[in-house]
Amino acid sequence: MLLKVKILNIDSGGKPFVFLNDKDADELNINASERVTVKAKKKITAIINISSTVEKGFLGVNEEVRKILSLKQNSKVDVDIAPFPKSLQFIRNKLSGKKLLYSEIHEIVQDLVDGNLNENEISAFVTALHIDKIDLDEATSLSMSMVDTGKTLCINKKIIIDKHSIGGVPGDKTTLLVVPIIASEGFTIPKTSSRAITSVAGTADRAEILMPIEFTTNKMLQILKKSNGCIVWGGAIELAPADDMFVKTEFSLHIDPLLLPSIMSKKKAVGATHLVVDIPTGRGAKMKTTGEADLLARDIIELGKRLGIHTHCIVTFGEQPIGNTVGPALEAKEALEVLMNQKHVPDLIDKACNIAGSMFELLGKKNGYLLAKKILESGKAEQKMREIIKTQGGNPNIIPEDIPIGKYSLVIRSEKSGQVLWMENRIIVEIGRAAGAPKDKGAGIVFNKKVGDPVEKGELLFTVYADQSYKIDRVKYILSSQVSLGIGKKSDMLIHTITESPIVERTFVIDR
Amino acid sequence: MLLKVKILNIDSGGKPFVFLNDKDADELNINASERVTVKAKKKITAIINISSTVEKGFLGVNEEVRKILSLKQNSKVDVDIAPFPKSLQFIRNKLSGKKLLYSEIHEIVQDLVDGNLNENEISAFVTALHIDKIDLDEATSLSMSMVDTGKTLCINKKIIIDKHSIGGVPGDKTTLLVVPIIASEGFTIPKTSSRAITSVAGTADRAEILMPIEFTTNKMLQILKKSNGCIVWGGAIELAPADDMFVKTEFSLHIDPLLLPSIMSKKKAVGATHLVVDIPTGRGAKMKTTGEADLLARDIIELGKRLGIHTHCIVTFGEQPIGNTVGPALEAKEALEVLMNQKHVPDLIDKACNIAGSMFELLGKKNGYLLAKKILESGKAEQKMREIIKTQGGNPNIIPEDIPIGKYSLVIRSEKSGQVLWMENRIIVEIGRAAGAPKDKGAGIVFNKKVGDPVEKGELLFTVYADQSYKIDRVKYILSSQVSLGIGKKSDMLIHTITESPIVERTFVIDR
Repeated sequence: MLLKVKILNIDSGGKPFVFLNDKDADELNINASERVTVKAKKKITAIINISSTVEKGFLGVNEEVRKILSLKQNSKVDVDIAPFPKSLQFIRNKLSGKKLLYSEIHEIVQDLVDGNLNENEISAFVTALHIDKIDLDEATSLSMSMVDTGKTLCINKKIIIDKHSIGGVPGDKTTLLVVPIIASEGFTIPKTSSRAITSVAGTADRAEILMPIEFTTNKMLQILKKSNGCIVWGGAIELAPADDMFVKTEFSLHIDPLLLPSIMSKKKAVGATHLVVDIPTGRGAKMKTTGEADLLARDIIELGKRLGIHTHCIVTFGEQPIGNTVGPALEAKEALEVLMNQKHVPDLIDKACNIAGSMFELLGKKNGYLLAKKILESGKAEQKMREIIKTQGGNPNIIPEDIPIGKYSLVIRSEKSGQVLWMENRIIVEIGRAAGAPKDKGAGIVFNKKVGDPVEKGELLFTVYADQSYKIDRVKYILSSQVSLGIGKKSDMLIHTITESPIVERTFVIDR
Repeated sequence: MLLKVKILNIDSGGKPFVFLNDKDADELNINASERVTVKAKKKITAIINISSTVEKGFLGVNEEVRKILSLKQNSKVDVDIAPFPKSLQFIRNKLSGKKLLYSEIHEIVQDLVDGNLNENEISAFVTALHIDKIDLDEATSLSMSMVDTGKTLCINKKIIIDKHSIGGVPGDKTTLLVVPIIASEGFTIPKTSSRAITSVAGTADRAEILMPIEFTTNKMLQILKKSNGCIVWGGAIELAPADDMFVKTEFSLHIDPLLLPSIMSKKKAVGATHLVVDIPTGRGAKMKTTGEADLLARDIIELGKRLGIHTHCIVTFGEQPIGNTVGPALEAKEALEVLMNQKHVPDLIDKACNIAGSMFELLGKKNGYLLAKKILESGKAEQKMREIIKTQGGNPNIIPEDIPIGKYSLVIRSEKSGQVLWMENRIIVEIGRAAGAPKDKGAGIVFNKKVGDPVEKGELLFTVYADQSYKIDRVKYILSSQVSLGIGKKSDMLIHTITESPIVERTFVIDR
């Protein structure tokens, strides 16, 4: 069917969409959300919307379609029913409980990346993977397919080591210490990181305080050649783009069945041969018990084997923030202070040395923890970090005082004496985000007390920082109804009382 | 946040959508597919899209939003993050395998009808109902919620009888006989019907050949008062609108977990006290075995009890079309010919008398089948049908010759001798739709042979009719690769051979 182009001037987050008049749709015998081929000089598949505001004889196109086909207002295009995507049959097989073969999963992932699947279909697939659970065969197929349908990094090294944390704990700036520790020993560590989606700061947000983080794969290779290590934003380099698409649906549904393939595909795409995965565990973390954490570790290690990545996992304490700060600038500052040995932050240093130490041991070195600690204390890690900052185009002489922190603040003092019995990661994240993080770089929290610390009535518990004053009001509102730190006697037993059917709000953390 | 309205001139099938610049979305701390409230004189919730083509400071609105809020270009609206819909938490509970309570399901259905759920969320819910199966408690809650969130018909009668077929068999014009048979005995039968979605014709499409079928609920009440019976299009009267929304998602995914609540909510909404449900069964029908059909009947009857609808089911032979015709006009014509006793179509008459007979017996009459047959043969059914046609505004003196049939035709003859061993409903539907049905009213198929009939080589098997000649070519193309009637000896054993991993195409029928 020949139709005239009507340019709609809207973009749809990367997906090709067209709008058809209902009469033309009837004529083509096609329904909303189905697919048409649109042919100009090139030919693409697009998802259709039925719209009575597009006149009969016209095809409304979004920016994605306009750009790919170089369309002009009123130019003619040939529109026809698209052949039924085979992948849809495979998704339906999954809905009826069938285990999918590699070729079937590859077809699904390819169609996802090509924009051939509509939101309903992607959502149904993700939901089915969540409810039916994916087994290791399917996780392997998904990982490989996600690597195959994106770019890969070709680093000419026999050993490439990487780290990953499944996340969920606020304030985790460990990577900013681990990368220079590992790189300073001459190992290649091509670290890609994500920005915060549901958290206060992602490693990419933290690193960006110190240096540029958006590079092409080519530029990333050059940085690695110079400095062995890097900390770049994964979103810019098109490794495993399917993951970025799946994650949108997972986020919307608060489920993450693709956690494992997501982690492992990104590592495979950078060519990692060795990998240490950190699994923060405890109330308020993603994994609630060490039993759960160990089972996840089992799957990660097995999946690593199948993908040719020698993998170890470490289970770490995840019931409170790491170190004393939360928020992009505050965290970057704390990491820099620790690298410069200006500040002693015991839990942060211990976690960083445990991860770096495991990585060293995975690579055959003895006493990894002590080696990592020595590198940190000797200033070699700081030196390497400044080298990386320079290579990535930042200021290598940056000092903690150069980093601006939010000019508005709110001081929270204890209303009673006792001990910090617990910290609630979920509320801490809510406070940090209400203060403006991750968008407002200077927003965040500095803690003066952590779990186990004795507290006097009136003593400073934490300070919230914000770049804009009205965001301090938002924080006050949250603090008026929610408790982020529990203070009391160790013998206090009551947690809470339930009197009617509660609506349970759960944290959902999908930064990965 | 105060934003200026930009009218986008697109509609989105009833759902309120707005488009935000990415910077404004960042400022609001909100992601694509989440919800905002938009406040002008009234306040509504809308799903957001992030779009770089909408300038910062502007809010792109679709026609739905423009109309509800009576917006003008550049008028100001107040946009804020919408409170998190509680129903989303309930959907997430379902995703983690929880059985949902009535109040939770009601909240989900209400939010669906109000447009507060995005496609991802609806799809995930439908998928979860499909994979985890809904139990009878949930089916009851869904039925009641779907009734509550739509209009209901208040017929002032103690007994209101209705019929329904779960569908799946082409050519099923039974309702056009059953409604006048029942109504002629003085019973009230408020029949609402659907148009074809995946089939060659829905009962609404067939009835529309004889009379108007789109009415308001008030007009429907008047028709019933005059004639006891009616055949109207359900889509026009807003009974259980949630069902129409769910069915879009189910159709897109080729699953129908909401089959039972869908059927029963529509019946409850018209106030039915008694109901007979037809379950066509056999290869090529929705239910493949009588065992399956009986289990479905069990659930339907129990659900009926819970909703206060006295329900019987009948399991009917569904392996081939009903009667000799398929397609809106051809089927209406055949039904009229049978009502006028001009033509004897044994299977159609038998099915209609069985259904009407069951309905009579459900209402306490004896020998229902014979009573139905007598009404049909005596011409009383024809007389009642002409009365209904007149009341609904059609021509009460219509004769079969008045009904136009497609002027292009294609005659298919047998290439060998033997017996009709099987007819493939799926291919028959494909041929009928390729010929132009249900949109082209005169398109369809007339069969000269059915299962069991002896066939000579060269004998006429069926004729395809179309309103447009190029659609005959489409049919030829289908017939060149697919077989709709199997002819052979009764001793022929081979069905087919499989040599490599096949892509199984399955029929999916969702007309209900």
